[in-house]
Amino acid sequence: MTNDPTQTLAPDSLGPTVTVGEILVEIVASKAGAGFREPIEFIGPFPSGAPAIFIDQCARMGGAAAIVGAVGDDDFGVVNTERLKRDGVDISAIAVSSDFPTGSAFVRYRKDGSRDFVYNIAKSAAARLEWTREVEALITRCGHIHVMGTVFASPAAWAITEHAIAVIKARGGTMSLDPNLRKELLTHGQTEEKFAALVDKADLLLPSGEELFLAAGVDTEQPAIKALFNHGVKEIAIKRGKDGSSAYHRSGAHAQCPGFLVDETDPTGAGDCFGGAYVACRRLGMPIERALEFGNAAGARNVTRLGPMEGAGTRAELEDFIARTARRS
Amino acid sequence: MTNDPTQTLAPDSLGPTVTVGEILVEIVASKAGAGFREPIEFIGPFPSGAPAIFIDQCARMGGAAAIVGAVGDDDFGVVNTERLKRDGVDISAIAVSSDFPTGSAFVRYRKDGSRDFVYNIAKSAAARLEWTREVEALITRCGHIHVMGTVFASPAAWAITEHAIAVIKARGGTMSLDPNLRKELLTHGQTEEKFAALVDKADLLLPSGEELFLAAGVDTEQPAIKALFNHGVKEIAIKRGKDGSSAYHRSGAHAQCPGFLVDETDPTGAGDCFGGAYVACRRLGMPIERALEFGNAAGARNVTRLGPMEGAGTRAELEDFIARTARRS
Repeated sequence: MTNDPTQTLAPDSLGPTVTVGEILVEIVASKAGAGFREPIEFIGPFPSGAPAIFIDQCARMGGAAAIVGAVGDDDFGVVNTERLKRDGVDISAIAVSSDFPTGSAFVRYRKDGSRDFVYNIAKSAAARLEWTREVEALITRCGHIHVMGTVFASPAAWAITEHAIAVIKARGGTMSLDPNLRKELLTHGQTEEKFAALVDKADLLLPSGEELFLAAGVDTEQPAIKALFNHGVKEIAIKRGKDGSSAYHRSGAHAQCPGFLVDETDPTGAGDCFGGAYVACRRLGMPIERALEFGNAAGARNVTRLGPMEGAGTRAELEDFIARTARRS
Repeated sequence: MTNDPTQTLAPDSLGPTVTVGEILVEIVASKAGAGFREPIEFIGPFPSGAPAIFIDQCARMGGAAAIVGAVGDDDFGVVNTERLKRDGVDISAIAVSSDFPTGSAFVRYRKDGSRDFVYNIAKSAAARLEWTREVEALITRCGHIHVMGTVFASPAAWAITEHAIAVIKARGGTMSLDPNLRKELLTHGQTEEKFAALVDKADLLLPSGEELFLAAGVDTEQPAIKALFNHGVKEIAIKRGKDGSSAYHRSGAHAQCPGFLVDETDPTGAGDCFGGAYVACRRLGMPIERALEFGNAAGARNVTRLGPMEGAGTRAELEDFIARTARRS
């Protein structure tokens, strides 16, 4: 264990962390079961969307934060923009569509923990992103871009992300990537190529499950990490859910953090909160070990609340959570 | 009071009653309040959409019934198609869109009885109707078309409706019109012209509130009725909500029906259910007075259940309701 020997990500002072992608409301079934074919009880709308959850936690942690996205001209859009604004996210590049509704996701947990969804994303404002003057103005002052794998589902978000990466890297900024992918999605040739190209550009990778192996093309952990370092990745933070997390820096520095023991109410958003806190901490100059602890705490705290970003914590809330929560041994 | 002296509408034996338009799910807030800007409790999805409610009640009453519409390839679509099919509606001309989601409406009642909505209709499957082979096959065997004023909101539904009216009238069928309109909507010149042309083609008109006056261009009841008869309308059934209903035939026959005394749980769909039952009864050969009683009963029974078409009744259920429910004096 060492302190962080290198600063992998551009410091917060270079400009905000930005992410591009879907902003949604989530409507959650109150009781477990299958599907949505008869009237059931729901609670919602909760602000949601993987990039939105990430950036909200990033801002709450104290990192400069912004998002490129779009909502409809309806209450569901306001739910999101108000929350992000309240939590300190720069919302100047969130467009409000007069034609398309805010994206939505109905979620119902099955008794085995799997989930059923009814989505409206592809035909919602979330899919209608454009490179506007507001986006231009924002991107040219950002210091870091965080890419969510969900970007592959939206051609518009992908186009903006690609251009934004170039602009931000050209001014000395950095890039992190949360693959947020499943193997099935990668079998489309084009996505596989795009993903490989993104991995090569990433300074920081935040995989979970088999994503590490998908990114590396190697199916055991240490060789996968070595392969990714050879591709130019500088740092890898591996999310292991209840089992905590590990981080590796190509300088040889590494850290482990055991999982916090919490009662899970709603697992949605845990990985996104981990990422938001981790990236914010690293950009604020914290060492890997401390960033890992905050990332773990952010993910663990978030699952204790119903709603995908309801448990995102401020730095003070996460410090309190860390001090008062037992960890797996 | 007389028996019905003329058969205004084509008999059921000529072919089903068809309607064209939006099929939606409705998600209803459990408690009264304003808007959707924080998480609240909902119940849903309920099958909905004014044309769908109308046609479901028409079928439950025993009338031959069909609908032209579209849903998404999701559970919310299945909620609608399964319900309509179960209740005897011909669903052969309901398209299933692989691109667009099923239309939806979130509804919240305010304490004063007014309602807030978040809709997704314009960018849903509900707005993507096409004149398919299935629509062609259906329309050419229909005996009556019921037009909902909501059709003006959808260019695609309007185009199909216009053509369907011509086809059905050419084979000896008839047309009914539920204006379902507000004055503000009529101020768009084109809609006003379209509406006037529809009124001229209507055999039966089913107005509520000020719609009678909008249709006639005359603002007192008896002169408005006379003006409409002069325009070719044969029969007018006026919906008066809690105060019941009245019907006038141009032969001079007329009937009144007092309102049923019920505890209102959810007013949505009452007028549509009235129309579905009334049209079915008239096409089944019942006199105006009896049709009016069934129409009133269908509307009144429907408001006792949560969900826009949950209270639609079969003939036996409505007969039972009529026998057991007190009326306003």
